[in-house]
Amino acid sequence: MRVAGQPRRTIWPVGNDRVEIIDQTRLPHVFEVVALRTLEDAAHAIRSMQVRGAPLIGVTAAYGVALALRADPGDASLERACRTLLATRPTAVNLRWALEAVRAGVEGEPVSDRFERAWRRAGELAEEDVALCAAIGDHGAKLLEAAAPPDAAPLQVLTHCNAGWLATVDWGTALAPLYKAHQRGLPLHVWVDETRPRNQGASLTAWELGQEGIAHTVIADNAGGHLMRTGRVDLCITGADRVTAAGDVCNKIGTYLKALAARDNGLPFFVAIPYSSIDWSLGDGAAIPIEERDPRELSRVAGRGPDGGVVEVEILPEGSPAANPAFDVTPARLVSTLVTERGSCPASRAGLLSLYPERG
Amino acid sequence: MRVAGQPRRTIWPVGNDRVEIIDQTRLPHVFEVVALRTLEDAAHAIRSMQVRGAPLIGVTAAYGVALALRADPGDASLERACRTLLATRPTAVNLRWALEAVRAGVEGEPVSDRFERAWRRAGELAEEDVALCAAIGDHGAKLLEAAAPPDAAPLQVLTHCNAGWLATVDWGTALAPLYKAHQRGLPLHVWVDETRPRNQGASLTAWELGQEGIAHTVIADNAGGHLMRTGRVDLCITGADRVTAAGDVCNKIGTYLKALAARDNGLPFFVAIPYSSIDWSLGDGAAIPIEERDPRELSRVAGRGPDGGVVEVEILPEGSPAANPAFDVTPARLVSTLVTERGSCPASRAGLLSLYPERG
Repeated sequence: MRVAGQPRRTIWPVGNDRVEIIDQTRLPHVFEVVALRTLEDAAHAIRSMQVRGAPLIGVTAAYGVALALRADPGDASLERACRTLLATRPTAVNLRWALEAVRAGVEGEPVSDRFERAWRRAGELAEEDVALCAAIGDHGAKLLEAAAPPDAAPLQVLTHCNAGWLATVDWGTALAPLYKAHQRGLPLHVWVDETRPRNQGASLTAWELGQEGIAHTVIADNAGGHLMRTGRVDLCITGADRVTAAGDVCNKIGTYLKALAARDNGLPFFVAIPYSSIDWSLGDGAAIPIEERDPRELSRVAGRGPDGGVVEVEILPEGSPAANPAFDVTPARLVSTLVTERGSCPASRAGLLSLYPERG
Repeated sequence: MRVAGQPRRTIWPVGNDRVEIIDQTRLPHVFEVVALRTLEDAAHAIRSMQVRGAPLIGVTAAYGVALALRADPGDASLERACRTLLATRPTAVNLRWALEAVRAGVEGEPVSDRFERAWRRAGELAEEDVALCAAIGDHGAKLLEAAAPPDAAPLQVLTHCNAGWLATVDWGTALAPLYKAHQRGLPLHVWVDETRPRNQGASLTAWELGQEGIAHTVIADNAGGHLMRTGRVDLCITGADRVTAAGDVCNKIGTYLKALAARDNGLPFFVAIPYSSIDWSLGDGAAIPIEERDPRELSRVAGRGPDGGVVEVEILPEGSPAANPAFDVTPARLVSTLVTERGSCPASRAGLLSLYPERG
């Protein structure tokens, strides 16, 4: 999608010795491109959330394995790369999936071919992600068009966190349907949850919607229930870090609360994901490990200071501890519809199997 | 309650020409006392949220009328003072109630007596508030003790916003039961919702619990549902800015979402209020006017900067608008119990009438 009018992706190879990424920890205040040249660069980028979003984490990890094999194509190096990258973020399932895809492409192959194969495989995963997200966008746009108010008033959509193009290679998951529908002329307005503690909504979703010219308003995470009760939301759509085979949705902390409010107000709650976010090995979402991140993500807030530079401030009283669980699980009963690259289905095992019969 | 070990109130008269308050916009980083000498000082203190919390707003407004009458005890001055103060915050009903109480005490009285009567009445309202909150604390502490885990593990309480002593003259509403139970030796741990956009939880609740030595952890507003689903919350308790005769609860934005999560997890959701927060003229909470505050309360965050001084940073992308509804309405069906100075009751007309039969 566009940044200052120019088409961009979130990650791209440069020659055959590095990939470049947008440093998302500096958005929306500073647009900065960072080069990843080593396994450690890639692991750091994922861990520190320079890249985030389940699909983008997967592609970055794939390039991370390739960069490790560039330095040392041996079995021990491959093993170490996969182990290091898998440990960076425990919740997203795409990470494991991408590592397995690259590993399968190089294991048993001559050491001399491994880097090239891994590099090519990572590139394929990136292209595949773009195609998956575009397809999610096309399927989801139909749902949005069907939900549009009859009077040509803007469709009012609420989203949580960032599942836009910044969370993928391009297009996004939850936001792809909005971009597609916007391009087809559907009037839209997006309520953007700030998404504490890291403010991915205020920092990333608002920024990317603004760059694409989609009308939006940032709200506190607390406000969505009130907006739903007072008739100012038509539907909710989010992404997910992992969806179980039974349709339970693990996504950014706070998603569950919005799904409860949507249900209480009779509003649709859509979750958009590529197949790589489905964990067929799990039924109950309660089994998903929930990452506990550094409490300083809550207690320290970054923004533009009085002189325009980025400043970090500490908001808690001295001596007050904080906790920072990063995800929650929304049970399938609260999710109206899953939107995937193959179409839409109810959030249930039967629904998922109707789209992925080969898993039956 | 205590600040640095010393007993404090939130508002107190000095001589007969001013009241002093704690400037709550500067907490938790700076403890500063501010003098209010005029009607305008009082209106500004309420509007800018130097004082906040329904009960404290009421008492401050009462002193504001007295200060106006000190300058000019005539009918027009009385009228103007009530009108000015009523317009400062539209949602809390205590404000209207306190203004009516002071007005009733001076209307028809000789002009020469009015200041003194109003000043005395405001002082009485402050003392009454302390007694009401202490009684709420005693009644609520019994509920907490009854809910305590059998194994002497700490009772895990979640609260939203600040309904502590800083929201009243002393003791608080939602936190009064915690202070009373803590003083009686009940082991407690409080999950403190940060409470965006103004961070009253992170700034005020965490600070006052810390000053009283009550164990607590600050969490993002998004986290409460997850903590409830994973068994780490025993009950929720909040205050309210207004409760209708049918038991609908208008409180800080986001309260509704926590009440939904409590219901979904079978947990009690208590709301603690003095009788002055009950609006007997309203049944349906949807009729309560919801204050829309300055979006900059969302987009700007204050904290301690790198050099220790308080700095305000701007967190939104340039050009992204924000909205800031300050309250929401939690329907009575989601509230387990109302705790008042007269005891506890179901959140319903019948429940409230069982405590206030004179309203039947």
